[in-house]
Amino acid sequence: MPAPVGLAAGIDMGGTKCLGVVLDGEGSVVREERRPTPSGPEAVVATLAELADDLRPWDTLGVGAAGLVTLDGVVRAGPHLHGVRDLPLGARLSARLGQPVVVDNDATATLVAEWRHGAAMGARDAVLVTLGTGIGGGIVAGGRLQRGAHGFAGEPGHMVVDPDGPPCPCGRRGCWERYASGTGLARMGREAAEGGRLGALTEAIGGDPAALRSEHLRDAARQGDPEALAVLDQFAWWTALGMVNLTNLLDPEVIVMGGGLADMADLVEAPIRRHFGDLLYAPEHRPHPRFAVARFGGSAGAIGAALLPGLP
Amino acid sequence: MPAPVGLAAGIDMGGTKCLGVVLDGEGSVVREERRPTPSGPEAVVATLAELADDLRPWDTLGVGAAGLVTLDGVVRAGPHLHGVRDLPLGARLSARLGQPVVVDNDATATLVAEWRHGAAMGARDAVLVTLGTGIGGGIVAGGRLQRGAHGFAGEPGHMVVDPDGPPCPCGRRGCWERYASGTGLARMGREAAEGGRLGALTEAIGGDPAALRSEHLRDAARQGDPEALAVLDQFAWWTALGMVNLTNLLDPEVIVMGGGLADMADLVEAPIRRHFGDLLYAPEHRPHPRFAVARFGGSAGAIGAALLPGLP
Repeated sequence: MPAPVGLAAGIDMGGTKCLGVVLDGEGSVVREERRPTPSGPEAVVATLAELADDLRPWDTLGVGAAGLVTLDGVVRAGPHLHGVRDLPLGARLSARLGQPVVVDNDATATLVAEWRHGAAMGARDAVLVTLGTGIGGGIVAGGRLQRGAHGFAGEPGHMVVDPDGPPCPCGRRGCWERYASGTGLARMGREAAEGGRLGALTEAIGGDPAALRSEHLRDAARQGDPEALAVLDQFAWWTALGMVNLTNLLDPEVIVMGGGLADMADLVEAPIRRHFGDLLYAPEHRPHPRFAVARFGGSAGAIGAALLPGLP
Repeated sequence: MPAPVGLAAGIDMGGTKCLGVVLDGEGSVVREERRPTPSGPEAVVATLAELADDLRPWDTLGVGAAGLVTLDGVVRAGPHLHGVRDLPLGARLSARLGQPVVVDNDATATLVAEWRHGAAMGARDAVLVTLGTGIGGGIVAGGRLQRGAHGFAGEPGHMVVDPDGPPCPCGRRGCWERYASGTGLARMGREAAEGGRLGALTEAIGGDPAALRSEHLRDAARQGDPEALAVLDQFAWWTALGMVNLTNLLDPEVIVMGGGLADMADLVEAPIRRHFGDLLYAPEHRPHPRFAVARFGGSAGAIGAALLPGLP
């Protein structure tokens, strides 16, 4: 199937809001619409259909949804999509809108945006990790988007990296997203503060370590606070560890870092690279992947969703 | 490139021996030759060339080598190939034999054998793990063998699964192959024996826990020794953990277990499946991969090497 040559609409459905865009033939955003994400499957279908109508005219439509999405567009479960289980979203939207709608995971859609027009453009082998509240991911291998046998490929956040680590809401312990996420960084900061470090920062936010958030650590590190920088270094170590596991498996040309924490790249990219070199298998015998920060910010998921129908 | 229709020769070069085979157009082994693996790059090239000559007649030749092999057939380093560093094995053999020779990693070759004619036949998404002294691996994704950007994809053994775990000869700690290998199983057995368990088995082998090997545990477990079965269950848990990490990333249709420990499949397959279901992300919302034991034993690497030149 050739890339869409007309107007390509894409919708990114997150836990709180849905963002819709329309791309022209050059991949530029020519229209944008937003709606809050409702609760329950019927309201989700109705809202997405209305948003799609608001975006008209368009020729193709893709949707990225925060959750496990099968190859034929069924949203099996979404940790942030309340009440949505086994919803055949692709089929429902197709029936309602009168034309085929492609549905995939939101991080997969983000990868597609970066791969076709962003930081991984032209790569045959690329990995995206979105570091935010949790971790999402997507994989390009051998020049193709990889969905896996059932559509669930690219969930690096639940790779177990420490069986004795903190409990994860998924039910296991020590998943990578307990570390290389905003949640993980905030926890490392709280533990440091409870251990008597980060005194100045804790005082500045009112004295309660429990109130420490990743943004506080970022801002203090930018101002040169050595204890905040030490916590970011610990965060960078764990981030590098997961990226090393991905690289030992997939040997990508480029690793793209997206998600909310990508705005800390100026602080963590150098330590991530350093720890990456220490943790990688046989680092002296191989080219290391390039690191890149996602080019598209909050609209990456919608842009990538718009590109889904044109993929081979 | 079409699959080879004539006689396809393949050589598996391991740390101690080289096994050469010739396959006919149906994939059946019609000839087999062996030589010890020598030390040093010149001796390796000479031995492989002589082995290739002994195998004649053949139309194509592929080689699987125990080590990191680049896309253009350079053996960067082999932990078990003494003195071999940055050896352009493909180019050297091609020049000597007067025709193109494809060289890849030995576990990748094993995967190819299982994918084309064995336990993963027909799968679009498959992972092979060879559990032996260490762990090797190979990946088929989206219907293609995945080599990565530089040829080094498929090294799951050095995925870090416990940063506080035992030191690995690779220089890191807690690599998966410290657990899901013969070495790992023997260590778990020794630790159990030193902790006062495995009394009958330790006595049977002369009283020294340091002498415990994976085969002792296997044999005792087959005879129903509950403490040996408990150690195998611990081994199965760690094996499942790594397989879960692979599945969260790649969502394969089938996971093939090869290598020397595959001969324990009767003992460990059921516990691996059980732990796998506990450790997988969102296990209730997705089909689980099929588990399969490698069909080709010790000749899988050579058979797969013979199939390398015919791959698309």
